[in-house]
Amino acid sequence: MVETLKRAPAYKPFQAPERKLFGPGPSPVDSRVLQAMTTPVLGHLDPLFLACMDDIKDLLRYTFETDNRMTLPISGTGSAGMESCVVNLVEPGDEAIICINGFFGERLHEMTERSGAKPIPVRSEWGSPIDKNRVEDALKSHNAKVLAVVQAETSTGVLQDLTGLGEMAHRYGALLILDAVTALGTHPVSVDANQIDACYSCSQKGIGAPPGLAPVTFSERAVDHIRRRRTRVQSWYLDVTTIEKYWGSDRAYHHTAPISMNYALREGLRLLAEEGLEPRWARHELNHKAFVAGAEAMGLRMAVAPGSRLWSLNAVSVPEGVDDARVRAGLLEDSNIEIGSGLGPFKGRVWRIGLMGFGSTRENVLLILEALRSAMEAEGKVCPSGIEAAERVYATAPNH
Amino acid sequence: MVETLKRAPAYKPFQAPERKLFGPGPSPVDSRVLQAMTTPVLGHLDPLFLACMDDIKDLLRYTFETDNRMTLPISGTGSAGMESCVVNLVEPGDEAIICINGFFGERLHEMTERSGAKPIPVRSEWGSPIDKNRVEDALKSHNAKVLAVVQAETSTGVLQDLTGLGEMAHRYGALLILDAVTALGTHPVSVDANQIDACYSCSQKGIGAPPGLAPVTFSERAVDHIRRRRTRVQSWYLDVTTIEKYWGSDRAYHHTAPISMNYALREGLRLLAEEGLEPRWARHELNHKAFVAGAEAMGLRMAVAPGSRLWSLNAVSVPEGVDDARVRAGLLEDSNIEIGSGLGPFKGRVWRIGLMGFGSTRENVLLILEALRSAMEAEGKVCPSGIEAAERVYATAPNH
Repeated sequence: MVETLKRAPAYKPFQAPERKLFGPGPSPVDSRVLQAMTTPVLGHLDPLFLACMDDIKDLLRYTFETDNRMTLPISGTGSAGMESCVVNLVEPGDEAIICINGFFGERLHEMTERSGAKPIPVRSEWGSPIDKNRVEDALKSHNAKVLAVVQAETSTGVLQDLTGLGEMAHRYGALLILDAVTALGTHPVSVDANQIDACYSCSQKGIGAPPGLAPVTFSERAVDHIRRRRTRVQSWYLDVTTIEKYWGSDRAYHHTAPISMNYALREGLRLLAEEGLEPRWARHELNHKAFVAGAEAMGLRMAVAPGSRLWSLNAVSVPEGVDDARVRAGLLEDSNIEIGSGLGPFKGRVWRIGLMGFGSTRENVLLILEALRSAMEAEGKVCPSGIEAAERVYATAPNH
Repeated sequence: MVETLKRAPAYKPFQAPERKLFGPGPSPVDSRVLQAMTTPVLGHLDPLFLACMDDIKDLLRYTFETDNRMTLPISGTGSAGMESCVVNLVEPGDEAIICINGFFGERLHEMTERSGAKPIPVRSEWGSPIDKNRVEDALKSHNAKVLAVVQAETSTGVLQDLTGLGEMAHRYGALLILDAVTALGTHPVSVDANQIDACYSCSQKGIGAPPGLAPVTFSERAVDHIRRRRTRVQSWYLDVTTIEKYWGSDRAYHHTAPISMNYALREGLRLLAEEGLEPRWARHELNHKAFVAGAEAMGLRMAVAPGSRLWSLNAVSVPEGVDDARVRAGLLEDSNIEIGSGLGPFKGRVWRIGLMGFGSTRENVLLILEALRSAMEAEGKVCPSGIEAAERVYATAPNH
């Protein structure tokens, strides 16, 4: 029929070992979430699937702590969520203040540029939070339509304090975009209380589902702003006004939703709600503190100052004389443990150790501490165990 | 902690019945493909996942019938694949000939407009293919950079003959974009033989995986064209040059790939290769012919003329006096059978009955024919059974 038809490649079914996912994400996925993906596939307009979508919106509103009507998962990964917030809120020529203290602030900057808007960067060093006074200076001296901030900078492990940023943006006539990719489900994001206008996250970190969806939420203020746009949103796929016609009461076909991924997201969110946000945050905080106590007892240094550390992602400085890549490869090959490397200026200098979602447990803290000690020993750096110091943190925890 | 914290919603795990998916997609998913998604999640830079990506690229090249280096799944649904082809190949101000004979041609037109390019529509009626002479006239009278064609118009069930279109586009200095969303894995697409420069599809039709990924392939001519762009691709998420840095040998982090969806895609493609493209096309053709014979024996009319019918998706005219929506709802509720409604001018006038991927079987043809007969009877339209006519087609098939 077609002369170029090639011989069909013959493959076996793919198999993978159970990795312990202590990198910057994906985080470990509970078997209930994996199993949810084997639920029979429904059509994207099946009334039963439409009910599943309603559950997801309800669960996302709880997780984002918002009443926003326009709350739904974008059918792509976290970066698609980022791009959806940028391209819906900015128009060509608009000024946008972009806070940059790591890799993902840079990405926001690039997306803003590609959208034809004019990004105004407010920079801080990698590993440090953004200075709010400098943000206010930038808002004062520009006519920005948008202020974009990363709450949890996945590249550095830095937590950004959000207090007052929403109110500040609004005072200067700007909307606040928040990157909560590594924050949602691990730290309070509090979309309504923090007056956030557009917030995006991902399925594979604090929520504990596989990667593939990007929960977003838009305030009424943001929705009004979108309605008054002078130009169409440049991306058809990421235009939230038309996506909302499918996720809202119109049920108008937009694109075929990733059915099985939505099953997984629903189950991850369901288990999150079952635990409750406050106990979940407390769990992440406790395991983070135990990890830090253990790591410091081993003589390791955290790359971020105490007040700005994420509970979900621990940035640990690679000790002098230790081969970053060899340690990571050894952990993966010998112990099925994944930890993350540094990015950009942190490349080779920092390990990113994620304890998030289902991965944030006492058992995992003790496991990774012992694995690190052993890896250091293999590098000729004999150091004390961190287990006791970590256990002391657990012993003093209220619900221990 | 946060005063607005709401009570957590309590949900049960989601359950769904086994629907028989005879709509325009998603098509039925084999249990081996569903099970593949329960494979332990790997990190997106895990060497074992990188190997899985290489398998997928190899299997996609087989399925697209191409040697194109740049062949990979976009991390979104088919429409994200469409947008990636448009925004990578066109630049603001460029002219682009867009063939429109249905809903998805219109979508291509809209995406082209949103990209800042100038779409030149070449229209044909819904239900008819595009006249190639009119395409050539449009190429002659414009300076188009791109010609975009839908091979399988999912909204109407029309197959577009591709012969000569690639050569014609190139003669006038244009690149050929092909929509193979409902064609890939069911009809020959033959990317190299047809000189297609950019082709996109989806995971949930001919491949038989759940929705969520959009396989794309770009010819070297297209890649050269992208390299010589005057402007950056407007979408960061869909910029194939940077996505290819992750999927190619650089392995540079771009975004976190949807790991579990890629497992499903690999398994769907693996089973496709196991069957082989030619037997798969023959299977779709045979079941389509049996369905048509049965439907016509029942007195139903196909909405598309014989030479232009898709093997994957059958457009059947809703008989006079029959309530389209009531029939579809009845099939779903009483028999767990999903069929598709018409879109646009076909709304209420056409049923779209998909027999694709794992769904294209003799058993399913007989099942849907009998279900249609019974549904018609419930509407007061007693008609003969189509089973015998369908069986006659099977009886004369070479491998029966």
